[in-house]
Amino acid sequence: MKVLGIIAEYNPFHNGHLHHLKSSLELIQPDYTIVAMSGHFTQRGEAAIVDKWERAEMALRNGVDIVVELPAVYSSQTAELFAYGGVQLLNHTGVVTHISFGSEIGTIQPLTEIARVLAEEPPTFKALLKQYLDQGLSFPQARHMAIMEHAKKMGLSFSESQWERIINSSNSILAIEYLKALYRTKSNIIPVTIQRIGAPYNAQEMSGEISSATAIRNELKKQKCWGNISRAMPRASFEILKGAIESGKGPVTNSSLEQLMLGNIRSMPLEDIKNLMDIDEGLENRIKECALKASTLDEFMALAKTKRYVYTRLQRILVHALLGITKERVERFRRAGGPQYLRILGFSTRAIPLLKQLKQSARVPIITKAARYEEVLKSPIAREMFDIDVLATNLYSLGIPNPCYRKGNRDFTEKIRVI
Amino acid sequence: MKVLGIIAEYNPFHNGHLHHLKSSLELIQPDYTIVAMSGHFTQRGEAAIVDKWERAEMALRNGVDIVVELPAVYSSQTAELFAYGGVQLLNHTGVVTHISFGSEIGTIQPLTEIARVLAEEPPTFKALLKQYLDQGLSFPQARHMAIMEHAKKMGLSFSESQWERIINSSNSILAIEYLKALYRTKSNIIPVTIQRIGAPYNAQEMSGEISSATAIRNELKKQKCWGNISRAMPRASFEILKGAIESGKGPVTNSSLEQLMLGNIRSMPLEDIKNLMDIDEGLENRIKECALKASTLDEFMALAKTKRYVYTRLQRILVHALLGITKERVERFRRAGGPQYLRILGFSTRAIPLLKQLKQSARVPIITKAARYEEVLKSPIAREMFDIDVLATNLYSLGIPNPCYRKGNRDFTEKIRVI
Repeated sequence: MKVLGIIAEYNPFHNGHLHHLKSSLELIQPDYTIVAMSGHFTQRGEAAIVDKWERAEMALRNGVDIVVELPAVYSSQTAELFAYGGVQLLNHTGVVTHISFGSEIGTIQPLTEIARVLAEEPPTFKALLKQYLDQGLSFPQARHMAIMEHAKKMGLSFSESQWERIINSSNSILAIEYLKALYRTKSNIIPVTIQRIGAPYNAQEMSGEISSATAIRNELKKQKCWGNISRAMPRASFEILKGAIESGKGPVTNSSLEQLMLGNIRSMPLEDIKNLMDIDEGLENRIKECALKASTLDEFMALAKTKRYVYTRLQRILVHALLGITKERVERFRRAGGPQYLRILGFSTRAIPLLKQLKQSARVPIITKAARYEEVLKSPIAREMFDIDVLATNLYSLGIPNPCYRKGNRDFTEKIRVI
Repeated sequence: MKVLGIIAEYNPFHNGHLHHLKSSLELIQPDYTIVAMSGHFTQRGEAAIVDKWERAEMALRNGVDIVVELPAVYSSQTAELFAYGGVQLLNHTGVVTHISFGSEIGTIQPLTEIARVLAEEPPTFKALLKQYLDQGLSFPQARHMAIMEHAKKMGLSFSESQWERIINSSNSILAIEYLKALYRTKSNIIPVTIQRIGAPYNAQEMSGEISSATAIRNELKKQKCWGNISRAMPRASFEILKGAIESGKGPVTNSSLEQLMLGNIRSMPLEDIKNLMDIDEGLENRIKECALKASTLDEFMALAKTKRYVYTRLQRILVHALLGITKERVERFRRAGGPQYLRILGFSTRAIPLLKQLKQSARVPIITKAARYEEVLKSPIAREMFDIDVLATNLYSLGIPNPCYRKGNRDFTEKIRVI
């Protein structure tokens, strides 16, 4: 049985995602597709535009068979940790045979070669890197020189322009991280990559049929021109999004959680901020100071941002602070093997045989009815990880525009989506 | 030198407060008046309608000479602890000679007698109380029977109807608590009481010139009929209030802090909720459960309320949770003698001789420039108490309607009010 795995946010599911899914299906011809999807907070440290059940349904309506939640402890992390969580989640299914991700270059060989060098750091590469750093080059420059020279020596196949394209695109950086994670977890999953089309990942403005998720979210926050948005999304996905927005389930943004995010940092002892993921070298002082100086979240970001402390990092820290994601916890979870359960958000009825297979082959417990998670999750560490997902939902809910949906514990009351 | 002390919230300062102040001045003829005023959270567990500096200025413009802040750890507490904090703050000035408070009966003797019985619990009273409880009477009934019989035996002067009026009015209950606190702290301050006029303390609706502060706040939250409000407040106080509201500094209510209050309880471990003041016998479970079930703060209150767990208690718990006011801290502060500093919010220039005197006689450090509090507050416990005041301001600010005023650390940037 061939099973395709994809790691995604689908925030929201648009034509670019559909292109990636369809191209992957064509290339791999799998029997089933499983997606590991972020829950309520995304890799850039943002609240998802609509909740995870709506977004899971978007994926299912477009041909995905099972959507599994990437635990919140991994969903708002740097590319490396996000990729580790996602890959390990797919590994833990025991059924995924292939993984497909987008990249700017669209061929797997150079990505694999680069990932391997970066993951292994072979002595020749390390020595070259040191040499260039000693010559006074910046780290990116030194790494560029070292990797190209190393590649020449070792007869690796990627070109200088391919390296440039990879290192300058956040999508290809994620691709490299997926490959590193596969390599490090000794995974049997076969990687493939699909060339991305159209808009770059972070494009701010809508641009026709292929627009970035960022552009679609910006459109939703501002004018809500449904015509523009509908052009950029598959019909089924668009209908779900429009329904959710019209009923007041979204759009949710970090600004929707402004009071909680700022209040939380204002309340937290410096020592606790210091222990959070992504905090180093006194950054806790800057974070605290800016949360006190700022009147709004936008002001906080503008005040706290530097060349080094970029937006996404600051946003992730705000999420870590909300959810109590400390370095210590992340390290403990890593030692326990990453994701501790497969929480299924939805599936299509055609995937019932796959679900049966999953129950046999999964290396971690499967949660289908979250209300019964205490029966399923026997280990304290699995419960601890799941509690973070529940907290993420409970706090995310407070930012939903329509107060009706602000009730807590929706993880225990929302039904698994079946189509 | 005669110095009058008053414990107040002035939320906002209205004609009833003016009546009380003027009558007290007439009766006592003091040289100066000092008010111990709640900061940003009040005795009923509510965010004050406008900030403490605006409210201090209202008092100064109406004849008060110095406004000292009642630390946040005492301002949102049951009558007993609130009164203890207020009385001890006045004791610590070393200059206050009289204290005046409102009551329904307007004569001090019966209040003093009752306070003394309740503070001392003499053996005859205790035996009577036990006897009536054993007969199956409810606590209030048994206490009523016991206290009247004890009074008859001891030749105390208060009548049954006076007792009824005292025990059924929250204002007179506060009066009793002030007297108990004076008694227990062996205070030399002489108590006097002024008969309250017009609207009862908790009246919800406006009623002409004498309206309750609750009614004025309700009017501000709803229609903002300035004509009605101006009739119920002295001119100077009304102008300050209107200016503050029009510039978006208010009205602030607990609902203004809804996301933070609910999010905070949703995040807090049960064990931490359990340690808060006013939590007993598993109430932490109810609080947590209701914060998860509720979509809004109003819904939370409606769900959590019982005959036993009244609104004000629940509101106070929400404030304790925000500010980290635990039983352990309150007990530690009590052992250290209550308020640890005199933080002056404002004064009138005619009070400069009093300020000089205060510097000589105060038993605790005086804070006039909060930015220099670290020079003034030497003891860790004083700093700990002051940090709670600062946190109260930093979180309160997030509920201010106009985002301009949501900046933190206003305790260090707002100027002391001088008129």
